[in-house]
Amino acid sequence: MNSNHYIAIMAGGVGSRFWPSSTQVRPKQFLDILGVGKSLLRMTFERCTKLVASENVLIVTNERYRSLVQEQLPELPNENILGEPSMNNTAPCIAWTALHLQVRNPQAIFAVLPSDHVILKEQDYINRLTEAFTYAEHNDAIVTLGIQPTRPDTGYGYIETEDDGEAIRSVKSFREKPDHETAKSYLDQGNYLWNAGMFVWSVKTIVQAFRAHEPEILQVLTEDLDKLGGSQEQEYINRVYPNTKRISVDYAILERADNVYTIPSDIGWSDLGTWNSLHAFREKDDNDCVAIGKNIHLIESEDIIVRADDNKTVVIKGLQDYIVVDEKDALLIYPKSQEQEIKQVVQSLKGKVKSTRF
Amino acid sequence: MNSNHYIAIMAGGVGSRFWPSSTQVRPKQFLDILGVGKSLLRMTFERCTKLVASENVLIVTNERYRSLVQEQLPELPNENILGEPSMNNTAPCIAWTALHLQVRNPQAIFAVLPSDHVILKEQDYINRLTEAFTYAEHNDAIVTLGIQPTRPDTGYGYIETEDDGEAIRSVKSFREKPDHETAKSYLDQGNYLWNAGMFVWSVKTIVQAFRAHEPEILQVLTEDLDKLGGSQEQEYINRVYPNTKRISVDYAILERADNVYTIPSDIGWSDLGTWNSLHAFREKDDNDCVAIGKNIHLIESEDIIVRADDNKTVVIKGLQDYIVVDEKDALLIYPKSQEQEIKQVVQSLKGKVKSTRF
Repeated sequence: MNSNHYIAIMAGGVGSRFWPSSTQVRPKQFLDILGVGKSLLRMTFERCTKLVASENVLIVTNERYRSLVQEQLPELPNENILGEPSMNNTAPCIAWTALHLQVRNPQAIFAVLPSDHVILKEQDYINRLTEAFTYAEHNDAIVTLGIQPTRPDTGYGYIETEDDGEAIRSVKSFREKPDHETAKSYLDQGNYLWNAGMFVWSVKTIVQAFRAHEPEILQVLTEDLDKLGGSQEQEYINRVYPNTKRISVDYAILERADNVYTIPSDIGWSDLGTWNSLHAFREKDDNDCVAIGKNIHLIESEDIIVRADDNKTVVIKGLQDYIVVDEKDALLIYPKSQEQEIKQVVQSLKGKVKSTRF
Repeated sequence: MNSNHYIAIMAGGVGSRFWPSSTQVRPKQFLDILGVGKSLLRMTFERCTKLVASENVLIVTNERYRSLVQEQLPELPNENILGEPSMNNTAPCIAWTALHLQVRNPQAIFAVLPSDHVILKEQDYINRLTEAFTYAEHNDAIVTLGIQPTRPDTGYGYIETEDDGEAIRSVKSFREKPDHETAKSYLDQGNYLWNAGMFVWSVKTIVQAFRAHEPEILQVLTEDLDKLGGSQEQEYINRVYPNTKRISVDYAILERADNVYTIPSDIGWSDLGTWNSLHAFREKDDNDCVAIGKNIHLIESEDIIVRADDNKTVVIKGLQDYIVVDEKDALLIYPKSQEQEIKQVVQSLKGKVKSTRF
């Protein structure tokens, strides 16, 4: 393992679309959403330690989740948890990570990876990331992994690439979430990939990119450079970080830089963004049902996803196209094809219901 | 209150049709099934103490429920709980109650009442029972309360009465649960009432009836008369009671005796036998939904009954004709019109699932 290689796992999201399982108190990445005995974060961490030593893994998350991270990743050094004092989107949090690593190791190359995605083809994933690390080490390049689209999904951003058949391609443009027609044309054209939020770059390259395209963020975070990397870093960050501009790294850097490359990656990826994507991802029974829980009994039900504690006996008859999710203090029974409404329903209950579920 | 009057509340049933709320460990009568803050047993007890002193209330139940009774009726003297060592149906348990009271007070008149029914018109109930007590005190009579049928229900036994317009009528016959056609003809004829399992008689009359119609049961229970009524009674009963014939009081006595009378009773009665009857009984919202629980949110749902703990947030969209019952370790989502299957489904899970829910 190359000691200059680092991985920063982004674990600050709140995952409100997985209500009632995912909540602000314990969002999706900290849950065993697949029912395999490990949280998504834990699985991501274990994948990453096949590429870099655990000392070279950073978890960037909201400060309030520090104890959850410590609990789930006991082997991680505490100083490798970067606790954001506020939610300022991805650009400030990546800038901080870069500045933090610059102090630790100016030669650092680091990947930024989501904590809550599923990867089915782990070896391919490791191979693509290894290629990305190598490319970023030898070039002043912003490298992204691009996922071959399988459907005209309107929920993702797209990467328009040079269709030159290379393993590492130049990026022509980043495209926001498209409408259905546009997404279909992207698929037809063949040179568009999904942006899965996976990036690799050297500290030098990304700091330079911030200097060029979003210097304000660097300015705020480097007000007192001496404080970075030492024992006073967290206290310092707590003070200055909230003043950074709230902007995504896609807007701030990727759409503006001209040294962006992408590696088309067939890695069995799912962002597990919704109950439907979990249903699509999991193995189904003969009636297209997915049951996560050891004691779920389905009778004449079709195309439903049920999630409950292993100790809970669930008996369901006659449901079609439903999501049924049972948590200790909340139960959701909702048409699967209408799940995009759930976020709003939960929002409308906030304030009305006194519960940590909201 | 007449100190010769007693009430024996039958609280030994297992109520398997109210799964998953009702279980063998804590059957229906011990639950706050209506969501009013009191169990059905507690409500029955409180009604009874408007007729007789709490010292004159007996609870006849399975021995294993003794602590539940003590917990829910702390003011009841412990010796007023008659704990059946086995489930031998109602005839042996009424015979024991009669023999027990005979020792305590040979002049006793006592009512036998179910513990798990609902009475909406309490004053009418008290008035009818008072009439029954008075009649049983002055006549060698088995008095039952008969409920005016409102539908051709096939789930109840019927009492055929002399249609003489009297407040207390002679009974011509008891009829088992009829088929639908027969039930309809009973309604058309007008002189049939539902048998709600509410009886009043003197100790003298009911012991004499057992002597005449089911002497074996008396024989088994009076093997050693001295043991009844004293400190050795429970131990004695534990030994002899399991040897009594397993038969209902309807078969053993009511269908055979010729001194049976009934008081037509308009008392707002429901036996709350099923989730459907609970749905029928409870006030419904504009969409015919019943929600028992303080935190249930129904969207575009019709004709459903939902029961959950007050602390559980429940969100349901788009269900029609459903029963949704959430308990700590079990969740049922079942078509309401198919609820007669639930008993069998639960039966089939027994043994498969390790849980006190079964």
